[in-house]
Amino acid sequence: MRAITMTQPGGPDVLVCAQVPMPEPAANEVVIKVVAAGINRPDVLQRLGLYPAPADANPGLGLEVSGHIHACGSNVTGWQVGDPVCALTHGGGYAQFVRVDAGSVMTAPDGISLRDAAALPETVLTVWQNVFAKACLKSGETLLVHGAASGIGSTAIQMAKAQGATVIATARSEEKCAFGAKLGADLVINTERKDFASIVGEAGGADVVLDMMAGTFMAGNLACLKARGRLALIAFNAGHEAPVNFIPVLQKHLTIMGSTLRPLLLDEKAALCDAVQAHVWPWIAAGTFAPVIDQTFALEDAAKGHQSMESGTFMGKLLLLP
Amino acid sequence: MRAITMTQPGGPDVLVCAQVPMPEPAANEVVIKVVAAGINRPDVLQRLGLYPAPADANPGLGLEVSGHIHACGSNVTGWQVGDPVCALTHGGGYAQFVRVDAGSVMTAPDGISLRDAAALPETVLTVWQNVFAKACLKSGETLLVHGAASGIGSTAIQMAKAQGATVIATARSEEKCAFGAKLGADLVINTERKDFASIVGEAGGADVVLDMMAGTFMAGNLACLKARGRLALIAFNAGHEAPVNFIPVLQKHLTIMGSTLRPLLLDEKAALCDAVQAHVWPWIAAGTFAPVIDQTFALEDAAKGHQSMESGTFMGKLLLLP
Repeated sequence: MRAITMTQPGGPDVLVCAQVPMPEPAANEVVIKVVAAGINRPDVLQRLGLYPAPADANPGLGLEVSGHIHACGSNVTGWQVGDPVCALTHGGGYAQFVRVDAGSVMTAPDGISLRDAAALPETVLTVWQNVFAKACLKSGETLLVHGAASGIGSTAIQMAKAQGATVIATARSEEKCAFGAKLGADLVINTERKDFASIVGEAGGADVVLDMMAGTFMAGNLACLKARGRLALIAFNAGHEAPVNFIPVLQKHLTIMGSTLRPLLLDEKAALCDAVQAHVWPWIAAGTFAPVIDQTFALEDAAKGHQSMESGTFMGKLLLLP
Repeated sequence: MRAITMTQPGGPDVLVCAQVPMPEPAANEVVIKVVAAGINRPDVLQRLGLYPAPADANPGLGLEVSGHIHACGSNVTGWQVGDPVCALTHGGGYAQFVRVDAGSVMTAPDGISLRDAAALPETVLTVWQNVFAKACLKSGETLLVHGAASGIGSTAIQMAKAQGATVIATARSEEKCAFGAKLGADLVINTERKDFASIVGEAGGADVVLDMMAGTFMAGNLACLKARGRLALIAFNAGHEAPVNFIPVLQKHLTIMGSTLRPLLLDEKAALCDAVQAHVWPWIAAGTFAPVIDQTFALEDAAKGHQSMESGTFMGKLLLLP
């Protein structure tokens, strides 16, 4: 089969399409014949050598795929060959076939194409884990999410609106702000022109912040959280260090939670997959939420996909088509 | 009745014992005839004008008392005149009588004197809320608590040991370290001589940190937390601002939670009081946990009590006896 390989960290051109052995499923795994694979920012960091894969992971890039079940390990009972699915991989999604723990596989949702379902696992599971499971966003509360046009941002806006929350989003251009508003955000702030914290504060504050920025955004995040506000941190695109004033943290009873999806235990991933199929798939079937695909690339054009990801000009998700 | 009053912020000598009107209970309140009142650090901050009482609070000092029910409001059903109780007040505990929401009152526990029960509400409810309810310390996990000899520290050490946790405590003198060890701490670190973070790290790390320090302790706190560690912050005696490196927060899936007891809703305080009576009172009855009283003062010597609190030389709790 063909898969994207790399022999050293570096720019997009280290990504090479090569013939590699077919994967064999372990007892609790399935092999998926890939229809599409999502490109995510951690893939770029891993390519650059800044985000090493866990020791037990497939060292290949690619954290999410859609496709059909191609083979099942001896202990797998829930899946049949041919089932249309999408899945969180433990690496190796940039390939024609990938093996995945059976608990990290989800039935492809009704309402969108199987190809587009590849855009769901990373962002939907990340948003579910952080905004819903950990930060417990409730109907009627207000979510602030940065990066309105990113995969995470575009997903969080739609899922929070589907939940009945008010959504405030930020972006760094008027075009991306318009994109966020079109997805349903009640208020979108261009952070290149305006101070988001004061605008969110004037709007009444946020109950939950989904933040992939940290750094220069942190003071504003903490300032605009309401009493009992929850900050779910998933990346630090604006710097990994920031001074924190703990007076508002104490006085407002704030909670700051960091997490990433990849190091979760398989049981935890399986529980998240169950929750997402139960709560989010109906929103997709009802047309309340759909992933937004900006562009697709052939597998051998993975380098071009990474160039797009790094350019920051895309809106929504980028997919590889093996 | 007699109560401690103050007409302006300042040193201990602004505390004056005066005749004031007897309190009358509102419909959901009781009046307690005070046997003893705890002195707490927030009282000193309030005296200095640095921690203003909430708008709806009794402006008098004193956040916890023990005594007997003296009168019940018209809606109060759970308490009878004469019941021995201890309670979290909404201010005004430095007095012969104080009115308190009926939900903030607890039956005085078996196993200790009614006088000593005045030392329980602030510290036990704070430790319960932070270490048990919010940070979910489990049997077999490790708690790190600073200030081994403080009211909070001495309480947290004993409650965590009673829960079956390993306890590491810090203090700033050999005498206070010995005190912490005597209370059951498995390891006590003199932070004047040693770097607590590296020692806790070598001991395997902490699942939960109960921190009243922040500031210069924050980097060490985050460094020595294990994966999925929880930091419960209740004060900032080492500075209210600190640089935070969010890489470990993300990689270790850390949670940082701030809170203080005073602004909680009455329903929340009542729920905490119920939990403490159910879980902590049996530890007291069994002799597993007892408050440590360093010194008592007559009500009119409140200024001396505050001098002791500010000297930092005491170990355990200080009480006023009206």
